[in-house]
Amino acid sequence: MPWSLQEVSQHSDSKSCWVIIDKKVYDVTNFLQEHPGGSSIILKYAGRDATSAYEPIHPSDALEKNLLPSQHLGPLDNEAVHTLTKVEASKKKTKDELRSEQAMNKRPPLNRIISLADLEDVAKQVLSYRAWAYYCSAADDEISMQENARAFNRFFFKARVMRPVSKCDPSTRILGFETTLPIFVSGAALAKLGHPQGEVNITKGCAPSKIIQMVSSNASFSYAEIAAASSPSQTLFFQLYKHKDDATALKRIREVEQLGYKAIFLTVDAIVPSNRERDVRSPWVLDDQETGIKVYNDGEGAADSDPGLGVAGALIVNDDRDMTWEKTIPWLRSVTKLPIVIKGIQCVEDAILAAEAKVDGILLSNHGGRQLEYSLPPLEVLYRLRMQQQHIFNKLEVYIDGGIRRGTDVVKAVCLGATAVGLGRPFLYAQSAYGEVGVRKLISILEREIVTTMRLMGAAKIAELTPDMVERVNWHPVAKL
Amino acid sequence: MPWSLQEVSQHSDSKSCWVIIDKKVYDVTNFLQEHPGGSSIILKYAGRDATSAYEPIHPSDALEKNLLPSQHLGPLDNEAVHTLTKVEASKKKTKDELRSEQAMNKRPPLNRIISLADLEDVAKQVLSYRAWAYYCSAADDEISMQENARAFNRFFFKARVMRPVSKCDPSTRILGFETTLPIFVSGAALAKLGHPQGEVNITKGCAPSKIIQMVSSNASFSYAEIAAASSPSQTLFFQLYKHKDDATALKRIREVEQLGYKAIFLTVDAIVPSNRERDVRSPWVLDDQETGIKVYNDGEGAADSDPGLGVAGALIVNDDRDMTWEKTIPWLRSVTKLPIVIKGIQCVEDAILAAEAKVDGILLSNHGGRQLEYSLPPLEVLYRLRMQQQHIFNKLEVYIDGGIRRGTDVVKAVCLGATAVGLGRPFLYAQSAYGEVGVRKLISILEREIVTTMRLMGAAKIAELTPDMVERVNWHPVAKL
Amino acid sequence: MPWSLQEVSQHSDSKSCWVIIDKKVYDVTNFLQEHPGGSSIILKYAGRDATSAYEPIHPSDALEKNLLPSQHLGPLDNEAVHTLTKVEASKKKTKDELRSEQAMNKRPPLNRIISLADLEDVAKQVLSYRAWAYYCSAADDEISMQENARAFNRFFFKARVMRPVSKCDPSTRILGFETTLPIFVSGAALAKLGHPQGEVNITKGCAPSKIIQMVSSNASFSYAEIAAASSPSQTLFFQLYKHKDDATALKRIREVEQLGYKAIFLTVDAIVPSNRERDVRSPWVLDDQETGIKVYNDGEGAADSDPGLGVAGALIVNDDRDMTWEKTIPWLRSVTKLPIVIKGIQCVEDAILAAEAKVDGILLSNHGGRQLEYSLPPLEVLYRLRMQQQHIFNKLEVYIDGGIRRGTDVVKAVCLGATAVGLGRPFLYAQSAYGEVGVRKLISILEREIVTTMRLMGAAKIAELTPDMVERVNWHPVAKL
Amino acid sequence: MPWSLQEVSQHSDSKSCWVIIDKKVYDVTNFLQEHPGGSSIILKYAGRDATSAYEPIHPSDALEKNLLPSQHLGPLDNEAVHTLTKVEASKKKTKDELRSEQAMNKRPPLNRIISLADLEDVAKQVLSYRAWAYYCSAADDEISMQENARAFNRFFFKARVMRPVSKCDPSTRILGFETTLPIFVSGAALAKLGHPQGEVNITKGCAPSKIIQMVSSNASFSYAEIAAASSPSQTLFFQLYKHKDDATALKRIREVEQLGYKAIFLTVDAIVPSNRERDVRSPWVLDDQETGIKVYNDGEGAADSDPGLGVAGALIVNDDRDMTWEKTIPWLRSVTKLPIVIKGIQCVEDAILAAEAKVDGILLSNHGGRQLEYSLPPLEVLYRLRMQQQHIFNKLEVYIDGGIRRGTDVVKAVCLGATAVGLGRPFLYAQSAYGEVGVRKLISILEREIVTTMRLMGAAKIAELTPDMVERVNWHPVAKL
Repeated sequence: MPWSLQEVSQHSDSKSCWVIIDKKVYDVTNFLQEHPGGSSIILKYAGRDATSAYEPIHPSDALEKNLLPSQHLGPLDNEAVHTLTKVEASKKKTKDELRSEQAMNKRPPLNRIISLADLEDVAKQVLSYRAWAYYCSAADDEISMQENARAFNRFFFKARVMRPVSKCDPSTRILGFETTLPIFVSGAALAKLGHPQGEVNITKGCAPSKIIQMVSSNASFSYAEIAAASSPSQTLFFQLYKHKDDATALKRIREVEQLGYKAIFLTVDAIVPSNRERDVRSPWVLDDQETGIKVYNDGEGAADSDPGLGVAGALIVNDDRDMTWEKTIPWLRSVTKLPIVIKGIQCVEDAILAAEAKVDGILLSNHGGRQLEYSLPPLEVLYRLRMQQQHIFNKLEVYIDGGIRRGTDVVKAVCLGATAVGLGRPFLYAQSAYGEVGVRKLISILEREIVTTMRLMGAAKIAELTPDMVERVNWHPVAKL
Repeated sequence: MPWSLQEVSQHSDSKSCWVIIDKKVYDVTNFLQEHPGGSSIILKYAGRDATSAYEPIHPSDALEKNLLPSQHLGPLDNEAVHTLTKVEASKKKTKDELRSEQAMNKRPPLNRIISLADLEDVAKQVLSYRAWAYYCSAADDEISMQENARAFNRFFFKARVMRPVSKCDPSTRILGFETTLPIFVSGAALAKLGHPQGEVNITKGCAPSKIIQMVSSNASFSYAEIAAASSPSQTLFFQLYKHKDDATALKRIREVEQLGYKAIFLTVDAIVPSNRERDVRSPWVLDDQETGIKVYNDGEGAADSDPGLGVAGALIVNDDRDMTWEKTIPWLRSVTKLPIVIKGIQCVEDAILAAEAKVDGILLSNHGGRQLEYSLPPLEVLYRLRMQQQHIFNKLEVYIDGGIRRGTDVVKAVCLGATAVGLGRPFLYAQSAYGEVGVRKLISILEREIVTTMRLMGAAKIAELTPDMVERVNWHPVAKL
Repeated sequence: MPWSLQEVSQHSDSKSCWVIIDKKVYDVTNFLQEHPGGSSIILKYAGRDATSAYEPIHPSDALEKNLLPSQHLGPLDNEAVHTLTKVEASKKKTKDELRSEQAMNKRPPLNRIISLADLEDVAKQVLSYRAWAYYCSAADDEISMQENARAFNRFFFKARVMRPVSKCDPSTRILGFETTLPIFVSGAALAKLGHPQGEVNITKGCAPSKIIQMVSSNASFSYAEIAAASSPSQTLFFQLYKHKDDATALKRIREVEQLGYKAIFLTVDAIVPSNRERDVRSPWVLDDQETGIKVYNDGEGAADSDPGLGVAGALIVNDDRDMTWEKTIPWLRSVTKLPIVIKGIQCVEDAILAAEAKVDGILLSNHGGRQLEYSLPPLEVLYRLRMQQQHIFNKLEVYIDGGIRRGTDVVKAVCLGATAVGLGRPFLYAQSAYGEVGVRKLISILEREIVTTMRLMGAAKIAELTPDMVERVNWHPVAKL
Repeated sequence: MPWSLQEVSQHSDSKSCWVIIDKKVYDVTNFLQEHPGGSSIILKYAGRDATSAYEPIHPSDALEKNLLPSQHLGPLDNEAVHTLTKVEASKKKTKDELRSEQAMNKRPPLNRIISLADLEDVAKQVLSYRAWAYYCSAADDEISMQENARAFNRFFFKARVMRPVSKCDPSTRILGFETTLPIFVSGAALAKLGHPQGEVNITKGCAPSKIIQMVSSNASFSYAEIAAASSPSQTLFFQLYKHKDDATALKRIREVEQLGYKAIFLTVDAIVPSNRERDVRSPWVLDDQETGIKVYNDGEGAADSDPGLGVAGALIVNDDRDMTWEKTIPWLRSVTKLPIVIKGIQCVEDAILAAEAKVDGILLSNHGGRQLEYSLPPLEVLYRLRMQQQHIFNKLEVYIDGGIRRGTDVVKAVCLGATAVGLGRPFLYAQSAYGEVGVRKLISILEREIVTTMRLMGAAKIAELTPDMVERVNWHPVAKL
């Protein structure tokens, strides 16, 4: 039963829907309703080859996890493989693909990359427009995203002089696990969109410096592949998007426990899709680039139709929207011994509730500005927490992410009481631009910047960074270059 | 007695002034002094066809309401009709008409419209310059208009997590009347300038979602036509510009009562014409586009001459400029049983007086920045009212309008105590761009944005939106895109 | 003894210096050292015709006041007159003169001028670059000048509604003298630079509305000419730059008393030349335009040489730099019965001293930002005075000038306690653009704006404008268009 | 033993490394490890002529101080000299050299230079890109550098009037030494990069006005040459970068004591290299300009390699990073009788410690924003010190530097209690643009601006400038032009 293209093509609707992925045939008829991205995106490829749409988004174990063995229908026949190969070979590159390829060939040499902004600049050039739109997009007018970064601009240092700093050690521990710097990789989905080795680039790039990687539930490599890519001394955390069905959620937890992941970061700020316009618009931008502007004709587009969820929204349609402090945390405690961190605390009041719920840590985060527009910048929440509820810092570990691009940003958060800070997009950009070596470069830049900042502030170790060393100024400094 | 053009043309001055409107002849000699826009604009067309100037501004019952039966002189003769039709057909389109037509043909398909800004962008393209200038213009340097919108930029959310939101209901009641969203159509005049179906587009577009429409005294459709276009379950409010003559004002109130309008919004912030420069300049812009720049020669334009009032000023010249709390509210109460809302409260002090006058509601508004330049933004007035006079919210309903363009804007106002928020220009833009379906699209976008915002804040219904969920920040966030 | 050019040309140095002005010959040898602009500017024309440099700056009585009868040497002979006339006629126009002429021919008709900004725009086009630079220049980086205007942007209205305003009267009194509006012409020198009729345009333009004109000591028309141009019911004030020699100062006071001027505004903020770079650079800009960029060669320009004072600095080199409260005010009181106002108070402390010195009024002013860079904006000083020393307003009249361009600006200052506000540059621009009729237009625009603002605030007369009607906001509104 | 090029060329690695400087041969093998800029930069020239790289950076006594007599190997032979001369002559100028030369020929005449900004503008044109990048670069995104200047923008004057100022004296004393103005030259390295006479231009330019020059440890002229260029009445201070080896540091102190330097400014804010990206990037910018953009190929640039320190970082690699209040100040006191000033105090807390350590003065400075990004602007530190710890001003002298460009800036700092203010970059720009005469021009401009400001504030001498004359405003003024 190797299949011909003709045979496959007869299963092209919702009653019987087959697709070809990487030269193999699958019956996804029963899966149509469960697909997080909705059935219509699959039906577009019903009876046809779906490889190019499928691969950049799905981890390698997705088919195995989601389809029964009987739905794996087996390989195409030789003629079909030959035909698809010819089709693939003859496919004309899009303008965006050509642009991206050209940019790839013009990347500056790595020794000219001296800041995270440099890495982002290269990534912006080499990424496909679709990947760029997915990575950089944020909610509504992208104000919270920008404010996350701008918040750091309001905090100045009161540097101390005449303190010995020839030896300066920026290492620390997160939930008891060693790290050479007070930073970690914050969970970010779909790294494969930016580079074929995706999340694995990050894993390998973090190994030498023991920077801890938080792996997203929506990673584009499987949790197992990422674990396999890690070195023995390396720590991985898991970012849990909790499925609405507890049993399904538990299966996911068990899997990562067994793979040796060391903590659960429960995502609470992204339980429904948000409004990321840049992401939603990206297929239109690409369409228009290839085939010209679309114009209105009556009947096209019902007034009440949904614009679609973009890439991001599709990933979370089955997540639990009814989590509570009373129900969810005790359940999680009851099923796992791993430390639990709440990812997505956005105000002081919830930080208090988290402490009362006795979780091990909280990650002050608004999801990089990608979820609730006008959510307070995490640094501002950290500052309020430090001013108003200092005791919280004794009860759990506090982290922040969002907008961190410089060693000074890291040091400011640490001064205010953060155990460590997470970076998401910067790691995606680094690996998109230069793969694994880009990740190493990012860490090396941050290390140099953090150590220089600490020394110039008179601090020889993390514990010497204290709240009195930063001041929130009441004017509006110039923006970064 | 069908009239020839020659006969009509003999009545071309203030002693005997006839005009042709839609092939019929009217004697407006006695009406010249009563015309809100002044006699000179009519005299420009004395003895001639005035249809093209008359129609986009006046409701269909204007002639009936303002002229005696004896002043309706009857139809033109056939030759006259023929001549006018030929003249009309041979009229060359202006550059602005051509531009607008071209834009109409290039509108993006409706399924690509995902924000209110998109609707405004299309409207800006397709509207005649004159309509655009009338809709978007505001007082003086348009600072209050811009500040209305910018005010929302200073209010951030303190989102709550771990609250059940899978079910989320944004419906509420305004003066006891149901609405699926805490929004309503704020009164805005002359919708016909933007689309032949004008206000009726709004009425029909609001029907499915039961969004309440406040109809302006200066609507370009008659109150009856709008009522006729509404569905049985739909609520209409009436925005009253009170005539200086109480009897005339009363006639207007009686009319809308009988038509089933459900509340009176008494306009108090627009009792004299204001200085809308963009509106005043618009005929010059169009003239120059057609025939080149005008230059100075001595004697042209007396120093003390008035620049004209623009479209807006003309509409209100006969309004009551001497309303008082002591006189006007009791009178209004005495003549109608409808709920009374004061539209145009601009400070806390007057909110208190309104409560003392026992009205049913107040609409904090500065008329979209179109009247008093440097009037405080309504959101700032709402914030002061909430901070300083919380008890007011128990005595009457509070609404705001001005600058609302996003679901987050709506939610912020509701958090601070607004029962609902009004949108004016956005509805005009939506119907100008796509007619009735544009109005439905606008509502559908706002519904999605409001529900998403509520869920991401941990609120499953309107009552769960509370003042502690917003914070007025003391820095200056980046502006919207 | 009509003089030949040859005879005149023999008196061309500081030992014997003759100049020709308007076809007459003057011996200015003894005057060289007394000339406020320094001797070098005169020596440039020694033995030659100086008319074109002399006329736009000097009032017609300057030669009479400054030279003895014996120094008036009499007319040129016919041949000399003939030669000069030919030279004049053959003089090629400069690029700047051509540009200015062209702009003059393209002025928009007066009925299209609807704001003070419109008048300024026209003036900027039609003025010679030199005049423009002199009028608009301010100290250093022109920050105080800009801040003067921007200060108004921070004050918002708390408008009151439901108050009778059909009748609205903006008239008031300044030092007991009637004015139809709470504004006056603030002293500004050298109006002739902008228009041949200079200050006289302002006088005549103000007559119908009884707007009071403060005439500068450095007016380019004589005090007598200006008085002669005024109507019987018109009030003139005098802006005194006190000469360091009391007797000389007294002579000036006696002159204006006899001409019927009604008050003395003693200038105290401009006792030394300031740094107006735009003014200083203007001859270089013009030179380069005509003849190309100047470049460095060694020896050109000693390091310690002064850049020159610009037009403005020259006017005040002989003024009294050692005035004190103890000495100067009593002296002034002793020599005149006219009301005394101190022009140039820049802080609350000096307002108190002025009240103690029992002067009749103070003009809060930083000279339009032309003197001390970073002097507080007058509106901010007024606000501090109102908040901190309310009783001062009962002891003397308070005025402000600087940055006023809108009716709202006027109303804000009046709300805060100003009896009236002065405008300087706007009157210069108005008369430069359209002469006397431009001045009338300016007043007519302001009247309309002031009345509209008052009505929309619920104020029917000046006394109803109170401090509680304005609020200084703590955010940064958008700038004017 | 005059050497041939062939003989020298055989010593081209780290085992035996000879270089040619100014036609003489040196054995630097043993010095490689001590070279502050690292060995690699020397090895680039091993066995070859290093003159062009060496000269613009090193003082003339560097070879004598750092190499043993036996390592001075003597002159090249005639043929070698001839060859090098020919090579030099045939060297094609780079695009940057041509640009700079052209700009030098187009400098505006000195009498058109009327502000420090003018001097900077010329310098930016005439400097080599490398020198410009070194001078103007600052840490990270150059925010602290910009904020240093912007801080002055927030302080406004409360000018006093009616005070005698015809005589105005801006002279004062610094550590007891006379100066005609409350300013001094703040230490700045490598003036030779901008002009062949480098620091000597500054020395000679300061002589007439007795402005005190603080000479950097890293000056590009020797301390002796600078002392020799000074006039007998002129005061020099010494900016000490303390070597980590006390004995080496002491040798440097003894040298300047003997040369007559009058005070030690101990640098404490620049003990490790900082991140000056513009400086680091400058060779790449120049390379690309000459030879095109560099692009990435695998293996080029290890991820963990350092980007290099730039010019600035190299100068301080051997400095003492373990200075403390307890150890360093007592040691310094024990070895010298000169007054001691701490340069680089960045917060109030350290100002208090400095007073307790009984030093003679503190220079509030963040090294012109070149070291710790987000260090508070010195003017803000001065303001906090004045508000919070007024008594400190009685215990030691306080100076600031950073961002001073106007006389108003100087006067503001003096009002707040600064004895004097330092300027660094402006002196480098002035001498780069016009040599010694540029320095005199700079001082003459500042003198005029300071005196004008004092007079317009009612201050006739430095002591009359008091804290109540400045106000820190709570809005954001427009930026300088």
